[in-house]
Amino acid sequence: MNKSISAAQIKRIRSLQQKKFRADTSLFVVEGEKLVAEALHSGYEIESLWKRDEISPAAMARISSLSSPSPVLAVVRQKKILLSDIRLEKGRLYLMLDGVKDPGNLGTIIRLADWFGVSAVFCSPDSVELYNPKTIQATMGAIFRVPVVYCNLADVISKAEAGGIPVFGTFLDGKPLSDDFYSGIEGGGIVVLGSESFGISEDISAIIPKEKHILIPSFDKAGKIREGGHGSESLNVATACAAILSLIRAR
Amino acid sequence: MNKSISAAQIKRIRSLQQKKFRADTSLFVVEGEKLVAEALHSGYEIESLWKRDEISPAAMARISSLSSPSPVLAVVRQKKILLSDIRLEKGRLYLMLDGVKDPGNLGTIIRLADWFGVSAVFCSPDSVELYNPKTIQATMGAIFRVPVVYCNLADVISKAEAGGIPVFGTFLDGKPLSDDFYSGIEGGGIVVLGSESFGISEDISAIIPKEKHILIPSFDKAGKIREGGHGSESLNVATACAAILSLIRAR
Repeated sequence: MNKSISAAQIKRIRSLQQKKFRADTSLFVVEGEKLVAEALHSGYEIESLWKRDEISPAAMARISSLSSPSPVLAVVRQKKILLSDIRLEKGRLYLMLDGVKDPGNLGTIIRLADWFGVSAVFCSPDSVELYNPKTIQATMGAIFRVPVVYCNLADVISKAEAGGIPVFGTFLDGKPLSDDFYSGIEGGGIVVLGSESFGISEDISAIIPKEKHILIPSFDKAGKIREGGHGSESLNVATACAAILSLIRAR
Repeated sequence: MNKSISAAQIKRIRSLQQKKFRADTSLFVVEGEKLVAEALHSGYEIESLWKRDEISPAAMARISSLSSPSPVLAVVRQKKILLSDIRLEKGRLYLMLDGVKDPGNLGTIIRLADWFGVSAVFCSPDSVELYNPKTIQATMGAIFRVPVVYCNLADVISKAEAGGIPVFGTFLDGKPLSDDFYSGIEGGGIVVLGSESFGISEDISAIIPKEKHILIPSFDKAGKIREGGHGSESLNVATACAAILSLIRAR
């Protein structure tokens, strides 16, 4: 019943924990019963599949990147999605991430995008890599359902403007979300979120119209909007994303 | 100008990275210029303060738990906040966490509580410890502004019911948020969130009225609520918290 795994195969799978080898081979690793099941039912090509019961718990521990190795691990071929593969449509919702660096944040945002029916996530080329094991884990399988495109964000914004699709960005000095925002986005548009440390880059800020610079308002204990001067300067990028998507969808 | 730090002091500060020693001494460690500044301006007692410029970068690296040690570290005395210290008031918003285990999630939720004007956070005794360095870091200073109480959650729910304060809980089989929920919470009430793996415990589920079991709806790409059967089974607890708080406050 046993399937053998060679020392060379173990080494190769372990090497995929490093970005360089993932880039060289265009492969990535998926672990966990739920995630592997989703990979198997997705359009992604499975390069190899390893089960603890077949290769031994010791071998599974060696190929796993998790502290408690799951019973199953798949090596999956990456899919390169291009901007030209995405049709920007009115009435649809899109996210744009400008330099998000934390793999957990990226994965959590993809999971949110899936939950709230976002049609695609655009990432700047300097964003954290999609196939980082921590990103994959945090998506909880949403990576197989939401198209994520690494591309020049300014190109997407030009395309959106040409198509009459509004582009909003979150800024610390933005305008608190109001009816203007909700009627502007009317269930469709692009929401841009910036990096954990620096927010949206200067280049991208400059091409988002000033009146579309938004801010999730902060509230005092009586439920009144706090004007300026709040101790917490910002929200974490993934929780800001959750707030905005839920607010848009609740309309 | 230099201040000396003894080997015994280094050992003692390092020991505070462990829960046992934090519990034994009722101390915790705060790192980072922003967080330490907030600690200094809070009502918390500072037991000792260490600056890299005074004790040397090498000594700072030894007492720090961060991979890139900050220029300043404070040892702070814990504050034990009791349920009797909190006045449950109508029209105020409260959070209740039933068994949240991840320190980053707890810290992120406290940061959200601060942002959205939550009056107190109640944690079940089996929740992750408040003074875990990862929790403190994730609060971004909100720990000094939001009261966090570890207590029997059923006691809080009884008190709330007696005071006419509604208690809502998030459940995977709950009712999608609707006008009923918004009018029920009318800017005030308690929202209960469960653990990452198991949700709200059976004991607490049983005392939350069935009609107050809520769910953040999931949406398809056209913006329609997805009824049942969605690939992603749930949201991360911190992002669910962000969605609910922002939705309540936007009303």
